Amino acid sequence: MSAGTVYGLGLGPGAADLMSVRADRLLGRAAHVAYFRKAGRPGQARRIVEGLIPPGAAEHPMDYPVTTEIPFDDPRYNAALAAFYAECTARLRALAEAGEDVMVLCEGDPFFYGSFMHLYTRLLGVVPVEVVPGITGMSAAWTATGQPITWGDDVLTVLPGTLPEAALLDGIRTADAVVVMKMGRHLPKLRRALAEAGRADDAWLVEYAAMPGQKVTRLSEFPDETAPYFSIALVHGQGRRP
Amino acid sequence: MSAGTVYGLGLGPGAADLMSVRADRLLGRAAHVAYFRKAGRPGQARRIVEGLIPPGAAEHPMDYPVTTEIPFDDPRYNAALAAFYAECTARLRALAEAGEDVMVLCEGDPFFYGSFMHLYTRLLGVVPVEVVPGITGMSAAWTATGQPITWGDDVLTVLPGTLPEAALLDGIRTADAVVVMKMGRHLPKLRRALAEAGRADDAWLVEYAAMPGQKVTRLSEFPDETAPYFSIALVHGQGRRP
Ligand SMILES: C[S@@+](CC[C@H](N)C(=O)[O-])C[C@H]1O[C@@H](n2cnc3c(N)ncnc32)[C@H](O)[C@@H]1O
Ligand SMILES: C[S@@+](CC[C@H](N)C(=O)[O-])C[C@H]1O[C@@H](n2cnc3c(N)ncnc32)[C@H](O)[C@@H]1O
Repeated sequence: MSAGTVYGLGLGPGAADLMSVRADRLLGRAAHVAYFRKAGRPGQARRIVEGLIPPGAAEHPMDYPVTTEIPFDDPRYNAALAAFYAECTARLRALAEAGEDVMVLCEGDPFFYGSFMHLYTRLLGVVPVEVVPGITGMSAAWTATGQPITWGDDVLTVLPGTLPEAALLDGIRTADAVVVMKMGRHLPKLRRALAEAGRADDAWLVEYAAMPGQKVTRLSEFPDETAPYFSIALVHGQGRRP
Repeated sequence: MSAGTVYGLGLGPGAADLMSVRADRLLGRAAHVAYFRKAGRPGQARRIVEGLIPPGAAEHPMDYPVTTEIPFDDPRYNAALAAFYAECTARLRALAEAGEDVMVLCEGDPFFYGSFMHLYTRLLGVVPVEVVPGITGMSAAWTATGQPITWGDDVLTVLPGTLPEAALLDGIRTADAVVVMKMGRHLPKLRRALAEAGRADDAWLVEYAAMPGQKVTRLSEFPDETAPYFSIALVHGQGRRP
């Protein structure tokens, strides 16, 4: 019997019809569908495909053991996640070794800050693995603003909001266009870095891009201290154009 | 009679099945399809949809007047392109005002260094315009390397290869992960900047990502002085991971 393939299926930013035709076809013939979620929550990737999983397909939720309860820099955080990824890998590996293909649902593009990467590196060389790229959350975010993100020679920098303020400032200063992901409660720090770089008035906040509840606000007019998990801050490039 | 809509249709990086379900559906009911090309060439966006344009749809090629014959910094370059974009805008506007929807084919994501942006800004507020985001060439490029591009807190910088060497070096130094687009004959300059930053051995060159002829090479082993137009150089991030 030949081994099945584990697919990292990029589903795009949220709207089901922003998934690729390839992902849609693979999903339509799936017998096994796996996805990450916080225990007790539906999970964003799973939400995207609501109504699209073939009847009879087996679902394999993978429930994160910790998310924000333990700080990142605590060694227990790493240990808990490493054990969790090892366990998920074992489940997917067993399915593939039994000859089954498994579709792992991934929000956005799997190789761009995606959780699937942790399984991918562990499965590589063990069972067949394939990745289907997807439209990123940031593409949906700049599309939602109705303004192009980069022109001509513009430099784009993508910054995780979790970085120290000095690193954010550095990144903003060397770029023409800026994308900030994973902000959450790091928003006040980002506001300070943007102000220091003189770009506070050019920044936009996009919540839930291409998802129900999509909202585009000037960051200077966004009232809260915390941004939702699915939100992206943007500064558009203003490069050369005829 | 109500005006038609001009759609900037992101088609993704090259393989037809990497276009979104939304783009595929819009294309399937298109009566007018427009696309940029170099005179005498098929045009990359048009190639992606070969066999997918409904029979009877009108095709509206838009032939670039100049590309590399006049250097960018020559004022005649700007003048020729501005006149060309104005003329394209007038054609699309006339169709929309006659009540017709027009699909403008865009390689990758329209708002990410795309030519459609020049029409978009001119049509905005004149006739209805809508943008469908797409999978970028860079997503296809990092997927082709079989390695995730960004982990944890990695900073990603996207650099046009056309920048001066000092700007490339700056961008490479402040980033963990690097994407370089539009390299062509600028490749030797990029090699020098990567070497100066100590990252020459970590760089990959992806030609024709998700297109026929896709090829992944270590940049240090790529023999030529010039890269094809459809090629991207990458340095992967190595960030935090449990
Ligand atoms: C773990 S990363 C996953 C990124 C994803 N793989 C992608 O390609 O966009 C999660 C972060 O992506 C951003 N994000 C992804 N999709 C989004 C969307 N549709 N709207 C707003 N933010 C999004 C948010 O900043 C969020 O904190
Ligand atoms: C004018 S930009 C258009 C970018 C496009 N809108 C996107 O979203 O990727 C053209 C540059 O994009 C890069 N590119 C786009 N698609 C590519 C692909 N499939 N393979 C390699 N390079 C690609 C090349 O560096 C090329 O010089």
